[in-house]
Amino acid sequence: MALIPLLQEPELRPFLPLLYVAWADGDLSDAERALIHARIAAQPWLKPRLREALTAWLLPASPPDAQALASLRSAIVAAAPTLSAAARHSFAALAESMAALDPNGRDAVAALEDELGFELSTLQLPVADAPPPPLPPRFDARVLQSVLDGRFADARASARAFLSEPGNRALYGTAPKPYREQVFGWLGDLAKRGFGALAFPGVTTDASRGLGPFLAVFETLGSGDLSLVVKFGVQFGLWGGSIYYLGTDAQRQALLPKVANLEAPGCFAMSEVGHGSNVADLETMVRWDEGKKCLVLHTPAESARKDWAGNAAMHARYATVFAQLEVGGVRHGVHAFVVPIRDEQGQPHRGVRIGDCGHKLGLNGVDNGRLWFDHVELTRDALLGRYATVTDDGQYQSPIESPGKRFFTMLGTLVGGRIAVASAGLSASKLGLAVALRYGSARRQFGATSQPETLLLDYPTHQRRLFPHLAQTYALHFAIDEAREAFLALGPDDDTREIEAHVAGVKTAATWHASAALQACREACGAQGYLSVNRLADARADADIFTTFEGDNTVLLQLVAKGLLTGFKQQFSKGGAWGAVRFVAGQLRATVAQTNPFTSRNTDEASLRSADMQLAAVRFREASLLSSVARRLSKRLKAKGTDSATAFLEVQEHLLAAAQAHVEVRVLSAFINGVQRASGPEREALNRLRELHGLCVLERHTGWFLENGAFEAGRARAVRRLVPTLFGEVRPDVLALVEAWGIPDACLAAPIAYSDPAHPRW
Amino acid sequence: MALIPLLQEPELRPFLPLLYVAWADGDLSDAERALIHARIAAQPWLKPRLREALTAWLLPASPPDAQALASLRSAIVAAAPTLSAAARHSFAALAESMAALDPNGRDAVAALEDELGFELSTLQLPVADAPPPPLPPRFDARVLQSVLDGRFADARASARAFLSEPGNRALYGTAPKPYREQVFGWLGDLAKRGFGALAFPGVTTDASRGLGPFLAVFETLGSGDLSLVVKFGVQFGLWGGSIYYLGTDAQRQALLPKVANLEAPGCFAMSEVGHGSNVADLETMVRWDEGKKCLVLHTPAESARKDWAGNAAMHARYATVFAQLEVGGVRHGVHAFVVPIRDEQGQPHRGVRIGDCGHKLGLNGVDNGRLWFDHVELTRDALLGRYATVTDDGQYQSPIESPGKRFFTMLGTLVGGRIAVASAGLSASKLGLAVALRYGSARRQFGATSQPETLLLDYPTHQRRLFPHLAQTYALHFAIDEAREAFLALGPDDDTREIEAHVAGVKTAATWHASAALQACREACGAQGYLSVNRLADARADADIFTTFEGDNTVLLQLVAKGLLTGFKQQFSKGGAWGAVRFVAGQLRATVAQTNPFTSRNTDEASLRSADMQLAAVRFREASLLSSVARRLSKRLKAKGTDSATAFLEVQEHLLAAAQAHVEVRVLSAFINGVQRASGPEREALNRLRELHGLCVLERHTGWFLENGAFEAGRARAVRRLVPTLFGEVRPDVLALVEAWGIPDACLAAPIAYSDPAHPRW
Repeated sequence: MALIPLLQEPELRPFLPLLYVAWADGDLSDAERALIHARIAAQPWLKPRLREALTAWLLPASPPDAQALASLRSAIVAAAPTLSAAARHSFAALAESMAALDPNGRDAVAALEDELGFELSTLQLPVADAPPPPLPPRFDARVLQSVLDGRFADARASARAFLSEPGNRALYGTAPKPYREQVFGWLGDLAKRGFGALAFPGVTTDASRGLGPFLAVFETLGSGDLSLVVKFGVQFGLWGGSIYYLGTDAQRQALLPKVANLEAPGCFAMSEVGHGSNVADLETMVRWDEGKKCLVLHTPAESARKDWAGNAAMHARYATVFAQLEVGGVRHGVHAFVVPIRDEQGQPHRGVRIGDCGHKLGLNGVDNGRLWFDHVELTRDALLGRYATVTDDGQYQSPIESPGKRFFTMLGTLVGGRIAVASAGLSASKLGLAVALRYGSARRQFGATSQPETLLLDYPTHQRRLFPHLAQTYALHFAIDEAREAFLALGPDDDTREIEAHVAGVKTAATWHASAALQACREACGAQGYLSVNRLADARADADIFTTFEGDNTVLLQLVAKGLLTGFKQQFSKGGAWGAVRFVAGQLRATVAQTNPFTSRNTDEASLRSADMQLAAVRFREASLLSSVARRLSKRLKAKGTDSATAFLEVQEHLLAAAQAHVEVRVLSAFINGVQRASGPEREALNRLRELHGLCVLERHTGWFLENGAFEAGRARAVRRLVPTLFGEVRPDVLALVEAWGIPDACLAAPIAYSDPAHPRW
Repeated sequence: MALIPLLQEPELRPFLPLLYVAWADGDLSDAERALIHARIAAQPWLKPRLREALTAWLLPASPPDAQALASLRSAIVAAAPTLSAAARHSFAALAESMAALDPNGRDAVAALEDELGFELSTLQLPVADAPPPPLPPRFDARVLQSVLDGRFADARASARAFLSEPGNRALYGTAPKPYREQVFGWLGDLAKRGFGALAFPGVTTDASRGLGPFLAVFETLGSGDLSLVVKFGVQFGLWGGSIYYLGTDAQRQALLPKVANLEAPGCFAMSEVGHGSNVADLETMVRWDEGKKCLVLHTPAESARKDWAGNAAMHARYATVFAQLEVGGVRHGVHAFVVPIRDEQGQPHRGVRIGDCGHKLGLNGVDNGRLWFDHVELTRDALLGRYATVTDDGQYQSPIESPGKRFFTMLGTLVGGRIAVASAGLSASKLGLAVALRYGSARRQFGATSQPETLLLDYPTHQRRLFPHLAQTYALHFAIDEAREAFLALGPDDDTREIEAHVAGVKTAATWHASAALQACREACGAQGYLSVNRLADARADADIFTTFEGDNTVLLQLVAKGLLTGFKQQFSKGGAWGAVRFVAGQLRATVAQTNPFTSRNTDEASLRSADMQLAAVRFREASLLSSVARRLSKRLKAKGTDSATAFLEVQEHLLAAAQAHVEVRVLSAFINGVQRASGPEREALNRLRELHGLCVLERHTGWFLENGAFEAGRARAVRRLVPTLFGEVRPDVLALVEAWGIPDACLAAPIAYSDPAHPRW
């Protein structure tokens, strides 16, 4: 076009950026181009031949060709480097850099820029400045770590030492067989280091600290290979734990030392394929044979096949088998038996058939197996005898007369396992967030014109994806710690049901959180998050089953709800005495009336941030939901012909909502307590995060609060506006908050968690 | 205990169930036992020795032993089989079956039962009846299938035939190398059957039906191995598609037949490790060397490494490489080049380095790779020449003058791929739901006393987990179909941007849905869902990346939002002319005022179920959110010194919310239209599901409607109450709705999708 030879004309040069943009986007209307033409042409100093060139350039019928546009851009770009980053946003400043400009000319360009609403972005000017350095941390991550590590810091340190050794890194993409062998090898190493012995205080280790060090080790191992964590839990927690809790002293002394040193690898055969959660209805039978004077273990139907048992497919030589016990034709309910299943060469014993569950979504380092028994004869002492024995003359004896109570006492052995699963989920969440937040702090994508691209973590949607999970992870850290301490404080004869419901609730929250947080991390890292080397993929796939095993979350929440309704004074089995429900309903209605935290219309920030208000709000919600479900239940139970199973089925959704509300109270309250454990800048950082956590919970339930008249629309809006503000406040703390988890570098082996953004290794 | 010898006493027998329950749960208070004692003892006919036995039995200080309780239970159970299922709930009925009972006795037992709120559940009576047979279907699944299959039913049928062959079942747990080889083998088979040729109508196949049959085949293959689907998409859709859309006629004729028959396997090298979504800023360079008269392709930095390219690590012999083109020192933006990367023996060409992305969460049958180029010389015709050429004397020529328009025209090639990904996500969701819903219809767990256990699918929480996804899947089926038809209706020179935003929106909805639905299916099948053999695990892991590839969903939603704000009349690149925003804001405010569907306080069911009201409600929400974000944006853009990138960053969350609201309108509206395609009972079934879908959307946004004054609390409650009612209405249709998807049995190879519940094969 005729314009190109004129590029050097000083009079025309100030207008070049506008002339470029006029065509470059391909979407300016003819009217808009006419406007540019009119305004530029109206400048008094413009010579006639320049007017002519301009007219030609802006003529709708003959747009400039691609080469001409590209040359124009080059001329502009060449003038840009002298400009500050700020000036690059302005046509006027750019115009000035293109040529000396008199004040009239500058005003003309500025007016035109304003009139058209143009931007310079289509110029794609080279980036002006280096990105700013990251902000310095505002607190000491090591100090916060010691707050988080708590009283079993020594146990955590030894687990971290194990994880930091080069041979102990998490595997991925390994074929199941060598993977399983490696995990079994690691398990032996852990046993050798005495980690297994920690599981049996008073038998294989000092009783004074209880299971605390074992559970701390378990949690810490959760940043490593999760197959190892699960195998560790199966061997020492479930197989060993069943003997520890259900065995007589003699049985414990005979077996546990061999469990602890892995001489006796075993599995835990509770679930049947036809009866996963419904343990009371297991079909596997053990009958006392009076003639042979022995117990006979039998799988009466395919639906009674023992399934999912970790360690069973390859390594276990023993199993704790849960089965219905029948003596002299009388059934006594579910009991636990120690059954040898393989000889030292790994061959199944006579009458025992063993299958492999096969490939899974994750945890392929764990050999889950199936067991069938064909009239396997067992001696009397196969029955774990703390709560039940069969005498040599075929008499059944138990110190717990009630079969219901006996059953729940036996299930109490699962409590420790649920704490363990919750804390493994917590560690997996921490690992995922560490990877995603570190990547987000280094990786840039898109951004304003001629600026360094924007860090992922500075995008509001990226903060929205990750920061609530960061806050929830801290909240759960303290919630799990409180549950663990409550469990550790139990005496040997204490009723375990309250702590059982407590732990069940925290387990559901921690494991659903792990699934959600790891999924968010995977997506927040894009395709990088999909690569196994970056650890998110396996952590996500491995942890996925945590919501199902050691108690399906949906089933556990019902246990939580029933516990709340009966105040733990009554049975929370299926059925039971439900007069209590009516009592609870009345009591809660009074609580609700008293505790509504929103009687004022206060929407000010300080109130929304305060721990007292946040806790009062979630407590109000819990009490309201519980009261409502109690009323629904008692209405149904009063009606003739509705048994409690049916009544519960009908209110199931309300029951779960109430239970989740209760768990939210526990978690927020634990976070509020946890903040007090720190001081100074660490406490401030924790408190900022607690404010965010509490507010995210309120935000999630805005609809409920509005529907129930607890929120005005103004308060709902205030909550939603404050959340992004808190994202901004937490933003500078993020890397230090992650560092305080003390995850060994060897676990954070993801390339994206480490690269210098200028020289990506990912 | 003294009671046992008296078990046969006719006078005592009616009370045995109560006496058993008095101890069996272990939680009855002494006061309650005293009450039982008092009430029974008050019966006039009771002999003194029976009174004595009763007193002993109910004495707090000496509970009966376990053996005594078990014997008591046996006696009761023996009397139960004569009872109907209903009578088993009642102590009185059971008492009557234990012995002849005079009316006074019956009343006494009934009064006591009522007073104590006892239940019989702890008796664990044997199951009384066989489960009821499943309800007959209310419509013809084959008729509905033909509605869903639509006009490319023949193409779908041939893809189903491929999937049904025994060698073509989805793999799992296979090591990556043999897995990749198998997938490549299948790909060759698909090419041989002519499925590849379908991708290039007018070149390798008849032009009349456009890409319709190809896209229908792609969607159908989505019930099979997803690695194959992706590989199929890479070879024919991306690699072939880039030539088809960007190549000259000569290039198309020369290359596409070899692409279609897999003689020329290729990959699509767009993303760079430093620039995933931000394609405009790719760093890979192609410079015209005037001396050598050739193009020189070079990777200038590690961040410019081509990454993720499917087919690159093993099989591709060509790549379409996207790079910045520079001719005579002038940059012309991103262009596409056909680059030979491997010789016939599979060895990389000189200057080409190829890496393997390694193990991934899923899709390990796809060989994703990395490419680096070291001054690779290309002939002029390597440049795909439909929109740009370089002449032999080093002149750049393009029929599209505007670089912005040229860039977006080239990106328009991605539209077909996004439809394909959306429909692969849809097929994966269907597969998952088919498995989970069939399992839920056969598997029982827990339930009322002495009834068959309850089917999983009859639990409200199970319905809540799966039914909204079922409804959403149907809605998306029609929404994808509408997007595909709009795409197929495009002329060769039509502006693709409106359809691009349309497809982008549907792609985000379908792929996020796939992740959520498959996750729900996995959890709803418990541990069974975690086993690879049941297909949910791999479908979940494979489909997970769909939310990221072919455009990250978060980035795509911003494209949707920008398109809406400019009404597609203006550029939706970064930056652009934003005067339109102000216009849109004003226009929308008027729309919002007119369309509020809730001016009445009508909460009646008919209104909540009606398509008109549901659609008006989501439209109102869309318009409100768009209007609000437009106002926020224009406020910022008016303020001096805020460029549009910054303004967009600040309103990013609002932008995404508006875009998602828009997509919800599209999807619901497509479902409403889709219902009209069927008639009779099939239309009724679809309409029931549409009612559910619309109501679930309203339920999800109850908080928003309340906050914005569109809902009263009463309406919110009415919505929440109606949803479970609709679950119940849809329940009998579920299996037929699943059958209508026509998923081949070979794809539903999950044991849990097929077993007879009485004889599980799972």
